[in-house]
Amino acid sequence: MGEYFSERRSAEVVNGRMGPAMDPRLRAVMGALVTHLHAFVKEVSLTQEEWARAVDFLTRTGQLCTRERQEFILLSDVLGLSMLVDAVGNRRPPGATENTVLGPFHVEGAPFRAMGASICLDGKGESCLFAGQVRTTDGTPIAGACVDVWSDNAEGYYDVQEPDRQPKWNNRGRFVTGADGRYSFVGIKPVSYPIPDDGPVGQLLQALGRHPFRPAHMHFMVSAPGHATIVTHTFDGTDAYIGDDAVFGVKETLVAPFVPVTDGTVQWRSEFDFVMVADA
Amino acid sequence: MGEYFSERRSAEVVNGRMGPAMDPRLRAVMGALVTHLHAFVKEVSLTQEEWARAVDFLTRTGQLCTRERQEFILLSDVLGLSMLVDAVGNRRPPGATENTVLGPFHVEGAPFRAMGASICLDGKGESCLFAGQVRTTDGTPIAGACVDVWSDNAEGYYDVQEPDRQPKWNNRGRFVTGADGRYSFVGIKPVSYPIPDDGPVGQLLQALGRHPFRPAHMHFMVSAPGHATIVTHTFDGTDAYIGDDAVFGVKETLVAPFVPVTDGTVQWRSEFDFVMVADA
Repeated sequence: MGEYFSERRSAEVVNGRMGPAMDPRLRAVMGALVTHLHAFVKEVSLTQEEWARAVDFLTRTGQLCTRERQEFILLSDVLGLSMLVDAVGNRRPPGATENTVLGPFHVEGAPFRAMGASICLDGKGESCLFAGQVRTTDGTPIAGACVDVWSDNAEGYYDVQEPDRQPKWNNRGRFVTGADGRYSFVGIKPVSYPIPDDGPVGQLLQALGRHPFRPAHMHFMVSAPGHATIVTHTFDGTDAYIGDDAVFGVKETLVAPFVPVTDGTVQWRSEFDFVMVADA
Repeated sequence: MGEYFSERRSAEVVNGRMGPAMDPRLRAVMGALVTHLHAFVKEVSLTQEEWARAVDFLTRTGQLCTRERQEFILLSDVLGLSMLVDAVGNRRPPGATENTVLGPFHVEGAPFRAMGASICLDGKGESCLFAGQVRTTDGTPIAGACVDVWSDNAEGYYDVQEPDRQPKWNNRGRFVTGADGRYSFVGIKPVSYPIPDDGPVGQLLQALGRHPFRPAHMHFMVSAPGHATIVTHTFDGTDAYIGDDAVFGVKETLVAPFVPVTDGTVQWRSEFDFVMVADA
């Protein structure tokens, strides 16, 4: 016979109802979730009207989701939860390159390009040479590392957002390092852009007094056999939104220099090294 | 310039981004929610795969919602959150009748019936006389109190779930007390039934090792001018599910006697008094 509900012991009553044979990990996760949600309701004395608004918000968030639009991930992003889950799952020693969120715009299978080649196929934007080295935490260059890169175009859109307006694989490419572990490619100096803000998450941002913009960044996924894959961005530290990324993707170690180039080959140069952790 | 993301200060970073002009109540509610959700993720070291499953679960929950089916309320119910919000919003002094959840099956505008009349229009089930008094906390009978009642039929369905199979307003009615504050009506001895369990919430219950049943109960909404409305049920304490209501609606004080009657007019009798709190 289970315990009857009481306000004081509400979380214990709910968690006490879990069956004896259930998955132990699910027991731990759901137990902690229930405990925190009940504590939240008590802490703020959530009203029935506020609860009804929350139910309505979650319902609208779910109903907006399609194959192309995942409003719940966006909600997780703007509450910092996506970043936190990424951080908890990818703790690394000091000196190793930190992760940040993958984001919704990565596409598997980008073309392999020759080292130093351009990924910008639409001719828009200020050209920028991205270059650096992939190495281990002890400084050894990693040969055969795959550097998968992607960014928005100069107008703030990824190719997949504008399939009829941009060349396929615009501002995307994969580069494989040689013996020196070095990579280089020409892209554009990235520009800031807003996350989709025409749905419930946009309304929430507005109610919170926040804007929907992400500071300019270049996406990198760096993989090499025997090492933990790095999923990250480099950020332009001079961007107006560098201190208030709508999805909290910026970490201090991921701010990269963007230096003007005067020799005429490209307009900017951004150097960034990737330090990988070997698998245990 | 906002603070960059870090695992250690993740909740503070997110909450620090709220704008200066926002609604103070929303600031308090969202601040507490973010703090608890971040603490939850850290406490269980939620993995990216688990997070993706949660996003999928929430998405499916939202997408199942229609005008007739509110899967997010059901989720709130089975996590005890609906009961908790109700409890926090309706704290009453000892001796006053406690609330429980309204549930999804109340319908406004049930017919007013003569005191003692039957609400059972389909002739199914074991007849039961429900009777008692509506009074104030100091014992004064309340005249003119409206006792709005509803229950499932003997097969476990409310009339609105079977509009083609049950008479309209089956097992529903409103009764207005006289000078003695007493009410009485004939209904059926209620039966237990499962909440809808063919969606994500049903899958969750199964994963938690829980069943979807609610113990047999009669719904009451008791209102009177100058008093806080009571939204509650009375429960049959002998029901097999009395100790593990799927939505945690049972409170100790709401278990009512169901006594067999041998004089032949009805088969059962259930007495329950309602004690109302005057408005401050």
